[in-house]
Amino acid sequence: MADVAPSRVWVSALAASPEEFTLEGDEAHYLARVVRARAGDSVHATDGAGVSATLTLLAVGREVLVRRGPLAKAAATRRFLLACGAPEGDRADWLVEKLAELGGAVFQPVDLDRAKWTRSDARVARWRRLAVAALRQSLGDHLLEVREPLPLRALEAAAEGERVVAQPGGAAAAGLAPPRAGACTALVGGSSGFSAPELKWLGEQRFRPVALAASRLRTETAALAIAAWWAAGGCADAGPSA
Amino acid sequence: MADVAPSRVWVSALAASPEEFTLEGDEAHYLARVVRARAGDSVHATDGAGVSATLTLLAVGREVLVRRGPLAKAAATRRFLLACGAPEGDRADWLVEKLAELGGAVFQPVDLDRAKWTRSDARVARWRRLAVAALRQSLGDHLLEVREPLPLRALEAAAEGERVVAQPGGAAAAGLAPPRAGACTALVGGSSGFSAPELKWLGEQRFRPVALAASRLRTETAALAIAAWWAAGGCADAGPSA
Repeated sequence: MADVAPSRVWVSALAASPEEFTLEGDEAHYLARVVRARAGDSVHATDGAGVSATLTLLAVGREVLVRRGPLAKAAATRRFLLACGAPEGDRADWLVEKLAELGGAVFQPVDLDRAKWTRSDARVARWRRLAVAALRQSLGDHLLEVREPLPLRALEAAAEGERVVAQPGGAAAAGLAPPRAGACTALVGGSSGFSAPELKWLGEQRFRPVALAASRLRTETAALAIAAWWAAGGCADAGPSA
Repeated sequence: MADVAPSRVWVSALAASPEEFTLEGDEAHYLARVVRARAGDSVHATDGAGVSATLTLLAVGREVLVRRGPLAKAAATRRFLLACGAPEGDRADWLVEKLAELGGAVFQPVDLDRAKWTRSDARVARWRRLAVAALRQSLGDHLLEVREPLPLRALEAAAEGERVVAQPGGAAAAGLAPPRAGACTALVGGSSGFSAPELKWLGEQRFRPVALAASRLRTETAALAIAAWWAAGGCADAGPSA
């Protein structure tokens, strides 16, 4: 029996699955066509919420019949929420992919005074597909949750844990250790920045300004940079929390 | 006289330009069509190598006639070279754009045992256009230099300053201050990683392994993450060098 390694599939109902069941659609395609798995191979399955199991493939075709091993549960010890103003054009697509690869928990589009998201069900559906593809790629057990846009001030309730905001002139990310445990919510503005009332509100809400680079960054670049800052805190020897 | 701010144009021969000259092509288009500048407006011009000047627009059309102010020279105090294995498909395109925005000095494609770059003059030309566009966007004075691919071992001569390599299991980037001055060369492998002889060579060449995230990253994501790590060291209050 070969391990189709490193590969993993997303089975949203894994926790409630019987010992034998059938994979269809994208996951079956991924196994049969992308990694060319065969009967007898085993793969890692995750429900994207921390539950995982090893699946042994019994038959591989347009559908893939599998037998599941014991369920394991891994709680996330760190959680990263990215709240983000609208970038230009389709630039959020790769941002979602990269955020998922870096281990982000939530992508929360935020409407700002100077940058509003265009509502698009097709786009949200595409982002969710990108998040699943990145889950397979990154070998994670937690699927990035893609949320519907909210107004900025809804972050008062939606933000979790430590709060930071990407701001030129803030504390340099290089000198600021990302939280080693718990949640962190990072806010990134749109290409035209925040309005004065928004900045005032962010101060009241204790969003800590963090500077990411000497140069001016596009929205999606700043978002990726702050996600990378957070992700580096999850490495094995990242040291104690600041 | 209005300042068409924040906008900037790239004039490669700025240092040798007469006091009045004409902009054509992309830069004229950018001024006339993208930022809709008018006669009397002023813009910042850079040669991408640290020389800059304020230009006053005398006439705006398909060509733009300008009068140049005094030349200023700003030497780069930090320099970042990204040496990178081939990512999948066209994924290097946005990597080049993001690297330029983050202030990278050199993009050096590197052929690895498990990942070779496909030679394409059209692609290199596209990357150079992306670098110019990012220079305008990021308000920098140094243009990202896009080089032709080299074999890995050519880095022995091509690398500058401190050497780091993206490697799971390395020192966590979160606990490692990026150099505050001088050059830094960061190497990122291809999607299949380095071969054993390559790893041995990297050790001999004193490339320091740096871990970027707990999850597995695509080539271009790791490259962006390590560029963001470096960029954060250029913020005003990033503190002393490690």
